[in-house]
Amino acid sequence: MISCGIVGATGYTGVELLRILIQHPEVQIRCATSRSEAGIALADFFPSLRGMTNLEFTAPDHGLLAECDVVFFATPNGTAMKLVPALLDAGVKVIDLAADFRLKNASVWQQWYGMEHACPDLLESAVYGLPELNRESIKQAQLVANPGCYPTATVLALMPLLQQRLINADSIIADGKSGISGAGRGANAAMLAAETSESFKAYATAGHRHLPEIRQSLEIIHGGDVKLTFAPHLIPMIRGIHVTVYAGLTTQEADLQAVFESVYKNEPFVDVMPAGSQPETRSCKGSNMCRIAVHRPQDADTVVVLSVIDNLVKGAAGQAVQNMNLMLGLAETAGLQAVALSP
Amino acid sequence: MISCGIVGATGYTGVELLRILIQHPEVQIRCATSRSEAGIALADFFPSLRGMTNLEFTAPDHGLLAECDVVFFATPNGTAMKLVPALLDAGVKVIDLAADFRLKNASVWQQWYGMEHACPDLLESAVYGLPELNRESIKQAQLVANPGCYPTATVLALMPLLQQRLINADSIIADGKSGISGAGRGANAAMLAAETSESFKAYATAGHRHLPEIRQSLEIIHGGDVKLTFAPHLIPMIRGIHVTVYAGLTTQEADLQAVFESVYKNEPFVDVMPAGSQPETRSCKGSNMCRIAVHRPQDADTVVVLSVIDNLVKGAAGQAVQNMNLMLGLAETAGLQAVALSP
Amino acid sequence: MISCGIVGATGYTGVELLRILIQHPEVQIRCATSRSEAGIALADFFPSLRGMTNLEFTAPDHGLLAECDVVFFATPNGTAMKLVPALLDAGVKVIDLAADFRLKNASVWQQWYGMEHACPDLLESAVYGLPELNRESIKQAQLVANPGCYPTATVLALMPLLQQRLINADSIIADGKSGISGAGRGANAAMLAAETSESFKAYATAGHRHLPEIRQSLEIIHGGDVKLTFAPHLIPMIRGIHVTVYAGLTTQEADLQAVFESVYKNEPFVDVMPAGSQPETRSCKGSNMCRIAVHRPQDADTVVVLSVIDNLVKGAAGQAVQNMNLMLGLAETAGLQAVALSP
Amino acid sequence: MISCGIVGATGYTGVELLRILIQHPEVQIRCATSRSEAGIALADFFPSLRGMTNLEFTAPDHGLLAECDVVFFATPNGTAMKLVPALLDAGVKVIDLAADFRLKNASVWQQWYGMEHACPDLLESAVYGLPELNRESIKQAQLVANPGCYPTATVLALMPLLQQRLINADSIIADGKSGISGAGRGANAAMLAAETSESFKAYATAGHRHLPEIRQSLEIIHGGDVKLTFAPHLIPMIRGIHVTVYAGLTTQEADLQAVFESVYKNEPFVDVMPAGSQPETRSCKGSNMCRIAVHRPQDADTVVVLSVIDNLVKGAAGQAVQNMNLMLGLAETAGLQAVALSP
Repeated sequence: MISCGIVGATGYTGVELLRILIQHPEVQIRCATSRSEAGIALADFFPSLRGMTNLEFTAPDHGLLAECDVVFFATPNGTAMKLVPALLDAGVKVIDLAADFRLKNASVWQQWYGMEHACPDLLESAVYGLPELNRESIKQAQLVANPGCYPTATVLALMPLLQQRLINADSIIADGKSGISGAGRGANAAMLAAETSESFKAYATAGHRHLPEIRQSLEIIHGGDVKLTFAPHLIPMIRGIHVTVYAGLTTQEADLQAVFESVYKNEPFVDVMPAGSQPETRSCKGSNMCRIAVHRPQDADTVVVLSVIDNLVKGAAGQAVQNMNLMLGLAETAGLQAVALSP
Repeated sequence: MISCGIVGATGYTGVELLRILIQHPEVQIRCATSRSEAGIALADFFPSLRGMTNLEFTAPDHGLLAECDVVFFATPNGTAMKLVPALLDAGVKVIDLAADFRLKNASVWQQWYGMEHACPDLLESAVYGLPELNRESIKQAQLVANPGCYPTATVLALMPLLQQRLINADSIIADGKSGISGAGRGANAAMLAAETSESFKAYATAGHRHLPEIRQSLEIIHGGDVKLTFAPHLIPMIRGIHVTVYAGLTTQEADLQAVFESVYKNEPFVDVMPAGSQPETRSCKGSNMCRIAVHRPQDADTVVVLSVIDNLVKGAAGQAVQNMNLMLGLAETAGLQAVALSP
Repeated sequence: MISCGIVGATGYTGVELLRILIQHPEVQIRCATSRSEAGIALADFFPSLRGMTNLEFTAPDHGLLAECDVVFFATPNGTAMKLVPALLDAGVKVIDLAADFRLKNASVWQQWYGMEHACPDLLESAVYGLPELNRESIKQAQLVANPGCYPTATVLALMPLLQQRLINADSIIADGKSGISGAGRGANAAMLAAETSESFKAYATAGHRHLPEIRQSLEIIHGGDVKLTFAPHLIPMIRGIHVTVYAGLTTQEADLQAVFESVYKNEPFVDVMPAGSQPETRSCKGSNMCRIAVHRPQDADTVVVLSVIDNLVKGAAGQAVQNMNLMLGLAETAGLQAVALSP
Repeated sequence: MISCGIVGATGYTGVELLRILIQHPEVQIRCATSRSEAGIALADFFPSLRGMTNLEFTAPDHGLLAECDVVFFATPNGTAMKLVPALLDAGVKVIDLAADFRLKNASVWQQWYGMEHACPDLLESAVYGLPELNRESIKQAQLVANPGCYPTATVLALMPLLQQRLINADSIIADGKSGISGAGRGANAAMLAAETSESFKAYATAGHRHLPEIRQSLEIIHGGDVKLTFAPHLIPMIRGIHVTVYAGLTTQEADLQAVFESVYKNEPFVDVMPAGSQPETRSCKGSNMCRIAVHRPQDADTVVVLSVIDNLVKGAAGQAVQNMNLMLGLAETAGLQAVALSP
């Protein structure tokens, strides 16, 4: 059995990691840390886990973490970068679900995250953990930066088009919509149910932290500059991301459906829907699937790609476990074959 | 007192018209028709109206309707066109909340609505009832085509930019999101609460009936061809529309905020939010306001306009009453000054 | 015009008072206080009020409040009792929407609210503001304790049965369900949308502060001891309270429907639904109505009463305005005739 | 591998059975029938199943079903009773998720279900499939009547109290609340999202079909007549049932917490929460657990039991699989150990 640790296990990403790892056939959770809840049983904190684990939260302890095969960081941005170097030195594999290692350029990171990076020298070797883009590198990686939720859905929607040079890279639009679990478990009046239910709004229109992350991946795929407008919105529901991508086609000739099907034909967690489909976010609820449909409305020169994931699974904890499986040589789908909950 | 009739009053648009008109200081509802519910008290059908009206539904009857000063059609598409000519002949003013008279071109109408038009000769004289665009014509009109919900939010978002020729008209994108009341009260398994709650999806990506309606208005404003991609989505909430518009700027110099504030400074039902704002749909819940914010993310060359309305008020019944007020020489805001319900 | 002040206007009860009073034909809002938001425009804090008021929040100031005809306290429990005595001395009429003056017995109050009462001598003269129970006293009152939301719905459900001695008072059960706006606008992780959506639970089963308040009213009506079990629950929606009351009948003979209709026949804000009805909370959304249905399932000896209100209107701000109208000699329904928002 | 068939697999109970059985380690789904969808791939009908099964719906065919080891009926009431006798003759084990075999008394059944029973002779031998009550009989059964959702949550809440004779059986109250998936997938205007969202109401107050079913089990446990008032309500959410049970205690001495813990100490799917707890329905979302808490508010003589399940799992498909496991000699928990989805 693989032994794993989770640092910062009291948030939504943390409990989702716990849910998946408890059911993973080849993993044993060695420790789940929380400074504030140390000594509390996980099942007392998360009643959904009653009867499923006897573990208690422990204070973060390097020694205990260093004995794990793999450590997940489900911490706020800026935490992992302080603890990761010592764990890497101890030979532990690390997957950071926050943003600390996602951007290659430390100064861009510092500009968007508003703090100095504690270990910019690690940014180069950290592997961006989008398996559909970087599978082979992930297998070799000791440190994986797990992608953000919007970037996962957006990059998967655009990768085939950019790889095949089917769209103009100078005016891509990604209109993102996310369920409210993306905002986390912190007490925040703006995220009260009475504030967000029965309403819909844009946020961070001026610039969201996922913008440079998405752009970085798109530019790697495209091999050049990409101009991207990314506008996120908040959906009054718990789980799910829907990204609607718009781009100008460079050709009227391509069989877009065939391109997507071909690019993703061997991907276990990307589902190219039949032509004419409109994926619902709920079709991924609790599942690690990304479902994608490609449209060319009115046969005009704008392509519209619809891409949905569960933000807590393929957009966070599920993708982290997919990365773990790759890093440890397990079956890529181990522990990740749950059927989406419907309705 | 103005006497009015409502044809087809059992749907969501119908009950919203009833709510507004019952509270309107200068209107008396003479009749509310429903073939299926004739003889039933309105308050038995809509418990929200208990104690507010003693009216019963009546079968649609030309004689009774012809005695009204104004008749609203809150019927399915294709119904009003059969009854309107006789009412116009009888001197009644008519406001159609369905789509029968929205498009000027009968063959385009027939293509999108899948039936032959019963009175194409009326299309020319029917006035498209967007007061911010056609106020003076509405005042003179006998027949007003009340705009669709998406068109209202979208056209108001784009009008200042097109009027001032600040954007390219060849690649406008309107990403629309609507609450589920837009789908109506008909029994429809796809609109069950267990189907639409906790999920988000696009629909009609290939082409929605509001596309030609939006394009028609934009082309009138622009004075030329407009290329528009319009992608509607379904939000798991009851009321509200949010349209996010993207367009390429023709200039970096314009003060977009000032342009919007100037264009709408005398409009009673268009609220240009302060720079940097993100309007929430709930800020219009039950109100006739359209709230708009204009952004230029990252100071790049794409303008993003956020536009929200209550689809049943400014997107339907409220705008219809605004049109009635104009047609009858009442104060434009009469009966429409309710404060939005919050939370 | 009546001039009024609102102390603590930033919560849900506060904004609902603002919504109703802005539309009230005979009231002018003189000041709305907030220590934390002083200097901020109300419409900047509550976008739903944009265009409806130019008022700014002011710091609470006795001088300004003392010039008002009536002052509403929409403050946390324990605040009003510190400021009310001086306002009463200044001749101002006061309506407290919190619990400070609801219980007649200061020691019971102290036990349930966990603090010492600042002016227990006022408890005797404060009038419990349930118009259906105390209309004449309210008209004469200078200080009104506005009832809690659950107590309003519960007492109205039981009053006819107790007045007519139709039920045993020794085992009454009130199973309450409330929308989440009842929990207020404070930042509270337990009330995040991701915590309360798609879930239902009981809370305060051991004893809720509304228990002694309900019991006090029931015992006044009954003229003796009442044994009550009150179990509140949280509904994943914003507005609305549904109380289901169960009690043992003392007789099989009574025409319960007739009793309810008779008791409430002149009440403007209590709607006894037809026999066999099941009121929906949404039928009161934004309205000051309480809708009630009485059932005797299976013709057995347990009566079941279903009672619904909008917790922010008849359960708080609307009832406060109803009380104001009575205290100031205005029409009882002034400013309170809005039709419920549906759907 | 066990081979199983599902008759009527297009409803919510059907897709939940599919979800569980696809992931069950010892079961293969042989056929899923639907008269209306025959020939359609399950994954086209339920996008959540894409990539998880290649099965197509087939028309119901006795021959194919007769080859299965076990057949589930997820059909409307009145369907199974026509097909079950022939399957039993063919030696197939049958689990009916509808109500056809739940009541022992055919005339009571006919009264509540409004049709004649097709095989009343089978009612005696059919085993009521509540494992906590009838585990040994289920193991021997060829025909199991899977309990209703409310009965499961209610009977588990009352069983310890009745077994230990701790409550009066002459005035038990069960206030039930259910998510809207309980109403099924049929097109029904009353279950539209715009009708049920943001609202709460009672239904079937005069008498719900689960009343005789609950009473039958309680009377078996009690060994005598039980008087029960059962009032169901509709919660604006998809999954989950919360039953709040009230009963008069016969003694003040009992340690109720200890009684519940003792009765259920070996039950894999009943979780007695710590004293003072309030189970949330979401803590069971997607899981087969029933979570229960017992309270004696204000130390008075009324006991309050809070009982929650996922209506589609322990209230339907999960319990059916639990019964299948027992009938076939598999581990009782096989395929049923999913952790609840949270948040």
